[in-house]
Amino acid sequence: MTTNHQWLLARRPKGEPSVEDFAWVSAPMPTLSDGQVLVRHHYLSLDPYMRGRMNDGKSYAAPQPLDSVMIGGTVGEVAQSRHSQFAVGDKVMSMGGWQLFSAVDANVPGALRSVDTSHVPISHYLGAVGMPGVTAWHGLVRIIDPKAGQTLTVSAASGAVGSALGALAKARGCRVVGIAGGEEKCNYVTQELGFDACIDYKAHTDYLSLSKALKQACPHGIDGHFENAGGMALDAVMLRLNPFASIAVCGMIAGYNGHPIPMANPSLILVNRLKVQGFIVSEHPDDWAPALKELGQLVGSGQFRPRETVAQGLASAPQAFLGLLKGKNLGKQLVQLI
Amino acid sequence: MTTNHQWLLARRPKGEPSVEDFAWVSAPMPTLSDGQVLVRHHYLSLDPYMRGRMNDGKSYAAPQPLDSVMIGGTVGEVAQSRHSQFAVGDKVMSMGGWQLFSAVDANVPGALRSVDTSHVPISHYLGAVGMPGVTAWHGLVRIIDPKAGQTLTVSAASGAVGSALGALAKARGCRVVGIAGGEEKCNYVTQELGFDACIDYKAHTDYLSLSKALKQACPHGIDGHFENAGGMALDAVMLRLNPFASIAVCGMIAGYNGHPIPMANPSLILVNRLKVQGFIVSEHPDDWAPALKELGQLVGSGQFRPRETVAQGLASAPQAFLGLLKGKNLGKQLVQLI
Repeated sequence: MTTNHQWLLARRPKGEPSVEDFAWVSAPMPTLSDGQVLVRHHYLSLDPYMRGRMNDGKSYAAPQPLDSVMIGGTVGEVAQSRHSQFAVGDKVMSMGGWQLFSAVDANVPGALRSVDTSHVPISHYLGAVGMPGVTAWHGLVRIIDPKAGQTLTVSAASGAVGSALGALAKARGCRVVGIAGGEEKCNYVTQELGFDACIDYKAHTDYLSLSKALKQACPHGIDGHFENAGGMALDAVMLRLNPFASIAVCGMIAGYNGHPIPMANPSLILVNRLKVQGFIVSEHPDDWAPALKELGQLVGSGQFRPRETVAQGLASAPQAFLGLLKGKNLGKQLVQLI
Repeated sequence: MTTNHQWLLARRPKGEPSVEDFAWVSAPMPTLSDGQVLVRHHYLSLDPYMRGRMNDGKSYAAPQPLDSVMIGGTVGEVAQSRHSQFAVGDKVMSMGGWQLFSAVDANVPGALRSVDTSHVPISHYLGAVGMPGVTAWHGLVRIIDPKAGQTLTVSAASGAVGSALGALAKARGCRVVGIAGGEEKCNYVTQELGFDACIDYKAHTDYLSLSKALKQACPHGIDGHFENAGGMALDAVMLRLNPFASIAVCGMIAGYNGHPIPMANPSLILVNRLKVQGFIVSEHPDDWAPALKELGQLVGSGQFRPRETVAQGLASAPQAFLGLLKGKNLGKQLVQLI
C-alpha cells in the first residue's frame, strides 16, 4: 500500500455546503520521522463543529485552510512506529482527518492516545467515550452542576453529545427531557437512551408551542439546559427555566450558515438570574480523564448503549457530513474506513 | 403633624406608564407597636426596577399590589422610637416607599440601617453608597471579576449604577468605557466621573454602527461588560467582546414595557465562550458590607463624586419617575421630601 486517499476543503461554502466544496485526492503515504507513528484509520468522526471550520470568519478556532485535509477525529491502529511507546497493532485515537492514514507526532501531548478496546468498541472512542462524551460531561459537571431530583433538558438529544448528556444526568438522579427532530429520534431517546421524555420540535411551528410541550414534560420547570442547537429550542426552554438555572452553550448549529438566529427573550436572563455560558471542550484538557473514566464505565457496563450511524468508505464522507448537518443520522455519525 | 401623604399604585400600565397610574392619598400617621420606629423620610429613591414591579407578570419579585403604597428606598431620621437601638434624630435608611412617613419593624434584619452622615451626604445612601452602588459592586466583583489593565464597558453609564461601576473599575486599574444617551451625559461620564471614554448611543441608528464606535474606544476589545439597559448597547458590545469575557446583566429597562428585545447574535456566547449572568442585588446580602465600605471610602475621599437629580416634594414623584424611565435624569434620581 503506497497511496493514501484524502478529502480536502476545496472552497468555502456560501450558506449550505455541498459535495462540491470537497476535493477527493490521492497522496503518497507519509514517511515517518523519529517520534512519529503511522496510523491506519478505522473510523472517522463527523461532527457539527466542522461546518464552522469551513468558514473564513472569526470563530473560536482557526478556519480550516483551503486545499488541506479536512480536520476530524479518528480511531485506528498503529501501522508503523518510530516511537517507543507505540507498537504496530496498538489501538489509538487522534485527529487524523478525512483520510485513510496519518502520521502523528506522538511526542506532542494528547496528539495520540491509546484506547482500551477490551470492554468498549473502538468506534465509541469517537462518540460516547470520546470528544462528544467529554463535551457533555464538561457542560453538565462544570457549568450546570445539577443536583439529584432536578430537571434538565438537552437539545439534539439523540446525537452523540445529547445522548451522553442524558446518560450522565440520569446517573446523577436527574429528570432528563430531550428535544429532538422527528418521532424516530424521540422514540430512540426515551426507549433506548432512557430519557424521561422527549419532545419532537418538528411537531411545533414556533417556540411558544414548543414551550407548552416542555411545560407538560417538565412540571417543576427546568433547572439546567444543555444547548446543542440554538434557535427555537433555546427560546422555548428559556421560558420554562427556574430561577438560578444554568445553560451550557455547546452548539449553535442552525447559525453556522451565516444567518444569525436572535435569542427571543434575553430579558429572562435577568428575570430568572440565569447563567448562560459557552464553552469548547478542547480548552479543558483536565476534564478528559475523569470524563472518559465515567463514560467508559457507563458504556462498558451496558448502562449507556448509544447507537451509531455508520457510512461505509471514505468516499462517502461528504454526503454523510451533509446528512449530519440536516439531522439525518441517528446517534453518532461515523465513517468506517476499513 | 397627624397626616401622612402617599402615592399608591392605582392601576397596572399597559405599555408606557403615565401619571394616571398613581393615586395621591392622605393617610393617618402610623401608630407604633413595640419594636417599631417611625421614620420621617428625607429622600425617596426612584429606580428602574420599580417599572417591573408595576406589572402583574412573572418576574423576579412579586408584583407591587394595587392600591398599596409604591415600593421604594428612603433615607430619613427617626421621629419616634419604640426600639432600644434607635433614638429620635438617628439617620436611617429603609424601604419606606413613596410616602412621607413609615413605621418600620426594626427587629427584622436589614429593615432599618443606621447611616453615618459625617463624611457622606445622606442622599448618597440611596445611590453611590446604597443599593445602586452595591449592585455595581456585585456585578463587577462577583461576575466580571476584572484584572488591572482590562477593558470594561457599561451601559447607562451616567446613572447611579453605571457611575459606581466606573469608579469601582477605575480603582481596580481597568480601562472603562461608558455608553450613555446624549452629549451632556457623555461629557459628565468622562469629565466628572473619570471614565476613559463614553459613547453616545443616540448618535447611532443601529448596533453595528455603535459597535464600530466601540471598536475605536476599545482597541484591545472588551473583557467585561455590565448591562443596565439591554437592546442595542448589548448587541453592539457583544460584537467586541474578547474570548472568555463576562457580562453581568443587571437591567433590561427597554424591555419593561412588554416588548421583548431579542439578542441579535447569541451564537457569540459560544464563539467567544462568554459567561452571561443575571443577578439581583437583594439576593446577595453578604455583599453589602464590603461593597458599602469601599463605596463609602470612594465617596468620602472625593474620588467618586456622583451627581444627583433631585425632584422637589413627594407630589413630583410620578413625573420624576416617568422622566427617569426616559433617561431625563443625570445621575441618581431622587425626590426630596422635606
